[in-house]
Order: sequence, then structure tokens, then C-alpha cells
Amino acid sequence: MDGENFSVEAGKPILCKAAVARKPGEPLVIEEIIVAPPSHHEVRVRIICTSLCHSDVTFWKLKDLPAVFPRILGHEAIGVVESVGEDVDEVVEGDVVIPVFLPDCGDCADCKSKKSNLCSKLPFQLSPWMPRDKTSRFTDLKGEVLYHFLNVSSFSEYTVVDTAHIVKIDPSIPPSKACLLSCGVSTGVGAAWRTANVEAGSTVVIFGLGSIGLAVAEGARISGATKIIGVDVNHEKFEIGDVLHDLCLMLYFHFHTAKKFGVTDFVNVEECGDTPVSQVINEMTGGGADYCFECVGLVSLMEQAYACCRKGWGKTVILGVEKPGSRISLPCADVVHSGKTLTGALFGGLKAKSDIPILLKRYMDKVNFSFLAYHGLELELDKFVTHEVNFEDINKAFDLLLEGKSLRCVIWMDKQASYSKGVCMS
Amino acid sequence: MDGENFSVEAGKPILCKAAVARKPGEPLVIEEIIVAPPSHHEVRVRIICTSLCHSDVTFWKLKDLPAVFPRILGHEAIGVVESVGEDVDEVVEGDVVIPVFLPDCGDCADCKSKKSNLCSKLPFQLSPWMPRDKTSRFTDLKGEVLYHFLNVSSFSEYTVVDTAHIVKIDPSIPPSKACLLSCGVSTGVGAAWRTANVEAGSTVVIFGLGSIGLAVAEGARISGATKIIGVDVNHEKFEIGDVLHDLCLMLYFHFHTAKKFGVTDFVNVEECGDTPVSQVINEMTGGGADYCFECVGLVSLMEQAYACCRKGWGKTVILGVEKPGSRISLPCADVVHSGKTLTGALFGGLKAKSDIPILLKRYMDKVNFSFLAYHGLELELDKFVTHEVNFEDINKAFDLLLEGKSLRCVIWMDKQASYSKGVCMS
Repeated sequence: MDGENFSVEAGKPILCKAAVARKPGEPLVIEEIIVAPPSHHEVRVRIICTSLCHSDVTFWKLKDLPAVFPRILGHEAIGVVESVGEDVDEVVEGDVVIPVFLPDCGDCADCKSKKSNLCSKLPFQLSPWMPRDKTSRFTDLKGEVLYHFLNVSSFSEYTVVDTAHIVKIDPSIPPSKACLLSCGVSTGVGAAWRTANVEAGSTVVIFGLGSIGLAVAEGARISGATKIIGVDVNHEKFEIGDVLHDLCLMLYFHFHTAKKFGVTDFVNVEECGDTPVSQVINEMTGGGADYCFECVGLVSLMEQAYACCRKGWGKTVILGVEKPGSRISLPCADVVHSGKTLTGALFGGLKAKSDIPILLKRYMDKVNFSFLAYHGLELELDKFVTHEVNFEDINKAFDLLLEGKSLRCVIWMDKQASYSKGVCMS
Repeated sequence: MDGENFSVEAGKPILCKAAVARKPGEPLVIEEIIVAPPSHHEVRVRIICTSLCHSDVTFWKLKDLPAVFPRILGHEAIGVVESVGEDVDEVVEGDVVIPVFLPDCGDCADCKSKKSNLCSKLPFQLSPWMPRDKTSRFTDLKGEVLYHFLNVSSFSEYTVVDTAHIVKIDPSIPPSKACLLSCGVSTGVGAAWRTANVEAGSTVVIFGLGSIGLAVAEGARISGATKIIGVDVNHEKFEIGDVLHDLCLMLYFHFHTAKKFGVTDFVNVEECGDTPVSQVINEMTGGGADYCFECVGLVSLMEQAYACCRKGWGKTVILGVEKPGSRISLPCADVVHSGKTLTGALFGGLKAKSDIPILLKRYMDKVNFSFLAYHGLELELDKFVTHEVNFEDINKAFDLLLEGKSLRCVIWMDKQASYSKGVCMS
């Protein structure tokens, strides 16, 4: 149901539908909620569509802190600014925006620096509140507070987002593709492009061919990498705990899928026998890869990734999230003597407000790819969208991801209405 | 005694004096040895002066492999090409050269790349032989083979060095300063300049104010760092093993010495109480330093260094050598989410043949410091030379270093002769 059916007015609460996560692991409940008007530095956004990311599923299943319930999940989305709070001059009503979990205030030393994407004015936290006043904008019809998620909460017809978490974009971009850049695809593409700065002609290894890993492959491909080795395993043989279960689903996609994303070679860890995968990679690459990306979240793979990045200039980028308290351990001798670099990246090292428009332009612009200095290699977003459902079927999106059948399932709030309003091209 | 007193002739063995390490930890023995003529891609060098580095002392004391005896130690030096072997066109007789332990063949992918200083054609090894044919050029008068050390073996009036380990330099540069760039000072200055690429206005933390740490300070200073924090300890309270003993001597120099090298602030770990030094640094710097350098070789300090480099763009550079088999352990959450980088550097990331001449020019040229884009900050080498001795007193140089009294002690083969030949300005 579209918000237009309700009393939509700037400065007043909106009654609309949201998919509320009431209990860990239980189907989301679509119910009417009240969305307060935006406060200072905030905007209220009518969501056009949202896509399901593994982090949504992880927090949906999590029984203990930092999980809280009832909560409105969802953090990959695109929407239209319905109204703005005070002190907002960056966007106006009607602007098309992408909400992003990572802040970009534009004012602090980090946001002003080219080297950081970790805003220090509104530092990213796994908070269930709005970032500035630590309150919620959501209540259910019984008056109970509904918690926010990752500063976005896009599983709702309307949401309120801080301006530090909003990127204004070209409204002509197909929303079901644009929303992908809110999190997962940006993280992978950005890790290859910004964090690692993959150079043309280089060799890349990606541990874990889930959506993040495939996005790394796409980022490496459009950066001109000529050898992209995907490393995957049979997920059923992992010894996994609850928390890791979702992450392992990332490993579910088969190699033929990966090929679409530019992966040129494959290593099945299970076929390596007693040989460490790093040794296999070192032999395949004649001494190690230029760039290694760990996209699973297992210490053992992080260490293997470091072990098979090339002496002299090899970079290992850690994207996978391990259990809290886990530590990665590296041989001191390698750290001192190999010239290798270890780093990681939140949101792929992208600065949301400046980098997302660049990536979207590269998706739209089929002619000029000068930012990569590599003509003819456009950013392909379409292939990430494997499924689309209507909002009322949002739990189907969860099922598809849990079953390992989807990369990204786009959830439309009201696709027909979006078309008729001219804000939806696909 | 100068080699000129013997039959010095290209293509024939030379009889000269060398300080031979015959047994672990026992005084070097100055004796006559025979130095074979240079083979393919090799040059025979008459050493002008050599300086004592901690690695010499470490291998002098070491009782087990990779130490071997009898051996000619020494790897920081300057000399004059006495003769060249076949296939040598890079230098000719009479050229002034600096030998360097790390190869730079100029031909391999690494040497051709700006990103690596780890030659892959003649990969650096702790070998007691010449790098290509794995034999020695030294014998004593009983015909016993004397082992090489770090591809240099400069504690001899004449030595043979592969051309990949030779840097031709401007002969007008004072040899007692130029020789410092063979190893230690280059490692520290290079780590700040090349590996970390310290930017003007940045904050730097250095763990361990030995000669490497002070060279890092010098590199940071001439790169325009405005806050250089030295971290040191009372070495006597370290629980140290044999191998670490020498490294701990690096901590011996007092803070007033460090000030000369640009260190602006000091943290005495022993005065931190129960507060981790990383926390002290984080508080001093308002969230961490831009660059942290570990110059001691202790895992605990490496981890502290990583913990107090700044989120967003902080770089930790490991230079200290821990015990074989040691591992550094980092929190995965920090690696993924902090945007920090961990790396290390052999020889400070310098490419010997191209970078040493740049550094020497910056030492000599008091006017144009354009390579640092920071006018008026010249590279100061003089302050590293705390002592000078004649070759026959080489064991005194060892004593001074063991007693923690010297930073660099320059050992002159024949200072007077060097002066009279016009190859010695200081």
C-alpha cells in the first residue's frame, strides 16, 4: 500500500505499513506503524524499493545484543524525500535518495579527507536509535517504540534518515539497481576500486563467492584485472555456529554464476586435499596474487589470503566479519620482510556522498569510463538482482536468501505506483 | 694497512687484512686473508670505511644457524671499485660505491616496479655465499673458506660484491656519512618516506628509540611530521632472551638524544602503570596517530602500535624483528572496520639504486628539497655518527654498541690514506 493513501504531510506523523521484526528468526509482520516527522538534520523518505542483505538476516536471527526487537530492519534502499527537518539544505522534497548505513557528515576531519570514510562526527555504531538524539521515529499502533536498524530501516513504506546517511542521486537511474549501492555491492566494488586500488592487468583472489565476493570480482573486472581467482568451499562441510550460518550461505553460489562476474579461475578448497589453498594459489600465480580479498569472515581464510598475496606489493583486504573477539594472526617475519599490506574496509572504503554517484554514473554511462581509465568496462548491476518480490512477500526474500537461491532480491513497496509516478524505470 | 701495499691487480687474488669472526661472541681477529677476483656480475671493492649495525652484533653472537663461522661480518660500508668481473658495465674501476645487503637487479618484475624493493631474480636470503654461484671469495692463509655476510662482508680491506648489491654514488660525499645509508639509517628514513609516505603535518609514533627508531624520526621530521612521539622503556626490565638482548640495546638511548632527531614528545612505558601505552597515545593524539612504527621487535609492542594508529587512515609499519616463528595477532573487528593498514618493510621499502642517491643528494644539497616538497628540512646524517675508530680497534666498536654508548661507530680502514687519495672529506 502506498503512503499516498494516508495523510502524508510534512511535520506530521505518517501512518504506513512496515515489515516489523518482532522476534528473532520469526517471519516479519507487516503492520501499520507511525513514522514521526524528521527532526533536525533528518529527512523522511518514502521507500521505492529495498533489497535484502545478509546483515538484515544476521540481525533478524540474532537472539542477543546487539540485536533488539521489535525492529524495522532493511538498509539497502532507494526512496523519495517526503519531507525534511530543520537545518536540512542538502535535499528537498521530491529528491531521489539512497540511504546508506555509514555516515558521511562532510564536516569532520575524516569526511574532509580523501583517505578515510569513517565519519568521526557521527561515528558508525550498531545503534537501534537515530544517530543524533538517540531516539526512535517509529511506534506501532499500541504506542510501543520500534527500533531502527543501521541508520536506515528501509522495510517500511516511510522511514526517517539522518542527512549524513543520505545520498542524492540522479532520479533517472532504475531504482532496483540503484538500491544495491546502499551496502553490499558498494562494499565489494569499493573494496577493489577504492581500498585496494586494483590496477589493470593484475591478479586478484577472492575468498568466498557470495554477493560481496562477486561484487569484489565486478570491481576487479571493471578495474582491468586480468586474472580473478575465486576460492569457494562446500558450505555443508563447514563447522559453523549460529552466527556463521548466514555468512556461509554466501558460499552457496556456484562457479558458473561467478563467471558472469568476471571470475576467470576457480579453486575449490575441498579439492586441495592437504595442500593449503594459499600454496595452490601461489603456484597458480607464480608467487602470489597482487590483491587478495577475504569475504567470508573466517580467520583461517584471512590468514590464507595473507599467505598467498604477493611479496613486494601484495595487498590483503579483509571484508568478512568474524565472531566478536576473534583475532587474525600473522607471522611477524612475513609482516616485516614481505612488503605485504593488510587492511580492511567498511563499505569498501567508499565515501558515500561522493563515490556512489560516480559508481551510478558508471552504471548509466556506457560510453565514458574514464574514471577507470579502462574503456568499455562498465559497472554491471543488473546481474546482482536475481529476484524481485512485492512488499507483502518480504518473507519470501528471506527464504530465498536462507536457501542460498538469491544474490539480491529486490522488494518493491509498490512497483506499479512507482512506474505511474515516473520514478521507476525497471 | 692499505691494500695498495700488496699486489693489487685485476683478475688476481688480493692479500689483505680482514677482521674475522671465528667464534660466536669472541673478539674479531684481524688477520690476513685472500680475496679472490670478482666473477661474473661481481665487483671487488676496496673498503674506505664501514659502520657497525646491530645485525652484525646479532650474527656475531648467534651460536646456531643461520649463523656460520668463520665469517667476515659487516654490511654498512662505502668503498672504491678495485676491479670488475665479466658482464659488469654498471661501474668501472675507481667508482665510489655503497654495498647494500638487499639486491636490486634492475631486471625483474619487482625491480622494475615502483611498488616493490624485493628483487625476485636474486631474492634476499641469509646466505653465507655469493648470491649467484653460492661460493665464497674469501679464504684464510690456511686455505679455509671464510663465509660472507649479508652479501657485503665489509669488515675487510677488500670484499667482493654482486653488482645487484652495489650503488654507485657521487664520490664527493663524505664516506663516513654515506656508509650509513647501507642499512640502518636507510631502513628508518625509508620506512617513513617510502613505506609510510608520511605527510606534512602528521602525527607519528615510534616504538623504540634505537638507531632505527631515530632514523624513522629523522625520516618523519624531514617529511614534515609535526608531532613525533617516541615510546621507550627501561630496557633492564625487559624479560629478554639471548636473541633479544641486542635489540633491547636499541632502547638505551635517552630522550635528550631523541630530541635531536625530531622527537617532540616522549612516553615512558614504565610510567604508564596499568594503562596500555596505546591508550596513552590515543589520548595524547585525540584518537590515534597517523603513522606508528615498531622498531624493537616485540609482538606486544607491534600490537600496541596497531592499537594506537588512527581509525580511517592509520598505518602501522613493523620494522623490528621478533624471534623466529613469532606471530602478531590483531582483532578481526579492527582489521575489517577501522580502515587501518598494517605493513612492514625490509630496508625501509627503499629501492637501493634509485633511492640511496636521492637521500644522499638531500644530505648534500642544502637548498633544494623538492622531493619532500618541504623546503628547509634536509636529511641530517652527521648526528648518527657518535664514534669513529680505526680498523684495528674494530672490537671497540662492538663494545660501544654492546654498552649502549653508540648509535653508529664508523670504522676506518685507513683514514689518512683515504684523505690523501682524495676520496675522503670527513
